[in-house]
Amino acid sequence: MNNVILLNSRPDGKPKLSDFKFSTEEKPEIGAGEMLLKTKFISVDPYLRGRMSESKSYIASFELGKPINSGGVAEVVASNVDGYKVGEFVSGGLDWKEFQLSNGKNLTKVNESLAPLSNYLGILGMTGLTAYFGLSEIGVPKKGETIVVSGAAGAVGNMVGQIGKILGCRVVGIAGTDEKVNALKTDFGFDEAINYNTEPNITKAIANFCPNGVDVYFDNVGGEISDGVHANINRLGRVIVCGAISSYNDTTPPQGPRVEQFLIKKSVLMQGFIVGNYADKFPDGIKQLSTWLKEGKLVSSETIVEGFNNIPQAFIDLFEGKNNGKMIVKI
Amino acid sequence: MNNVILLNSRPDGKPKLSDFKFSTEEKPEIGAGEMLLKTKFISVDPYLRGRMSESKSYIASFELGKPINSGGVAEVVASNVDGYKVGEFVSGGLDWKEFQLSNGKNLTKVNESLAPLSNYLGILGMTGLTAYFGLSEIGVPKKGETIVVSGAAGAVGNMVGQIGKILGCRVVGIAGTDEKVNALKTDFGFDEAINYNTEPNITKAIANFCPNGVDVYFDNVGGEISDGVHANINRLGRVIVCGAISSYNDTTPPQGPRVEQFLIKKSVLMQGFIVGNYADKFPDGIKQLSTWLKEGKLVSSETIVEGFNNIPQAFIDLFEGKNNGKMIVKI
Repeated sequence: MNNVILLNSRPDGKPKLSDFKFSTEEKPEIGAGEMLLKTKFISVDPYLRGRMSESKSYIASFELGKPINSGGVAEVVASNVDGYKVGEFVSGGLDWKEFQLSNGKNLTKVNESLAPLSNYLGILGMTGLTAYFGLSEIGVPKKGETIVVSGAAGAVGNMVGQIGKILGCRVVGIAGTDEKVNALKTDFGFDEAINYNTEPNITKAIANFCPNGVDVYFDNVGGEISDGVHANINRLGRVIVCGAISSYNDTTPPQGPRVEQFLIKKSVLMQGFIVGNYADKFPDGIKQLSTWLKEGKLVSSETIVEGFNNIPQAFIDLFEGKNNGKMIVKI
Repeated sequence: MNNVILLNSRPDGKPKLSDFKFSTEEKPEIGAGEMLLKTKFISVDPYLRGRMSESKSYIASFELGKPINSGGVAEVVASNVDGYKVGEFVSGGLDWKEFQLSNGKNLTKVNESLAPLSNYLGILGMTGLTAYFGLSEIGVPKKGETIVVSGAAGAVGNMVGQIGKILGCRVVGIAGTDEKVNALKTDFGFDEAINYNTEPNITKAIANFCPNGVDVYFDNVGGEISDGVHANINRLGRVIVCGAISSYNDTTPPQGPRVEQFLIKKSVLMQGFIVGNYADKFPDGIKQLSTWLKEGKLVSSETIVEGFNNIPQAFIDLFEGKNNGKMIVKI
């Protein structure tokens, strides 16, 4: 039998285990033009929360009673697909199933000898590309500028800070525990980091740690943390709006200070994006990230949880900030 | 004697006549390298409200007891400045005085035979350039796209709509009276216009009048009107944040729905600006606007109030929407 995880109910506010259904089905057998994939790693990401709601977003909602689907790495264990051999590894969107069929569409082959398989979901996957393209295409940081990143200990935030340092910028991170703050500074090269849970005034803290103001703000969280950064933004600043995890579980539209006045006064740009906007440049991005990884300039940050049945809990833990870097489930 | 208007007190909320002081001084006499200007037209603009407060903005605050300064056109009535002759006209930043000295710095000569002098404060001045550069540099509208403009009957908004039509777009304006709405459609070529004072639901009205959604939103007002437009923005839409007149007189920071989620979901850009950012391109902008004016493709929209002492009331009336197009005081 094949273990599968289905969407049981649409979360009301914060997702809970009962929103997921652990089920089984017949282990599938391959037909012509099909291969059988054995799931090795599953990526859980905050954006999946949006797909669990019914509201329209940039990608379709998950259906009730159907499997969740997210990024993953799998091994080919049987193949009738030209070009895919048993024992090879692939990454791409996978259903939350231990085994599944594929015709090879929208999958990329990955090589365990070049980097650990989990890296293809983080540093060399959507996470790395999101950080890289958000920063290079929207933030366009110049050497010596100050970059602030929220959700800095998260998968994307951690990469943003490291890339910012490679580009010669001052990097200040915002995270939620002293442990994370220390790791950002000692393990990942951030110039400064702020614990928003113990810091009484984010606006003042940003002003202290960014004596020349903020040129680029890479925002993964939204909400009051972002209000504090906005208050310190420089003329011609760029705000990369990548995520708003602070409000993903809100049941009413979040309210806050209107942004128009600071956008005008400082001639600031705010740009929302999804990484898919830059799909035609993915090969360039992966090449650059691989080079930095090989040169030792980028360090992978991953929290690996073990066990297929722990996928939902790992996802739920994202909203408690229990991860350091990329949250990945090893099957 | 020379009539002058000084800032008497910093407005608390909406500006009132008592915030201004009508005074007199000795009529100045020119020395070496100076010329005497006689003010002919003064431009009153919503952004001056910001300069009357003490809060930091992109330009210095006006000082209490000192003259207000805004765009104007003046005649040279005596000159010791090389290149400036009596009888010539200049435009630039002028104190609210009937007569003033200048060394010619930051002034531009204007030609009454090419366009009425007031046009150099509107269609061929900062107003026209603001509309032109906001639209062409940030909005970058493509033929067939839908542009929505708020404050559409105001100086900048009216020009935005006209330029949008020249560029082959569908243009929908938002204004505050039926008279303005009708004028936008019949006199200025807007495809549709919405009266926000009688329309019960701006979001639905925008949806009705923009069946293909909103590609470019040129925002002069902010507030709830903008919330309604944001709700209808298309993927990869551009929001040009030019003004937020709805909140200029607020005494506490305005609150509203946070924008991050729609920016991400639709990959939308919001960009604040001031026209001075494009100063190096002003000659190109003036050339293009003059060409369109000569070709009859652009129509000037001006509300001209007469009398030096009516400058403060004309300024106050901006916040009641009493102007159609550019509000100018003729001295």
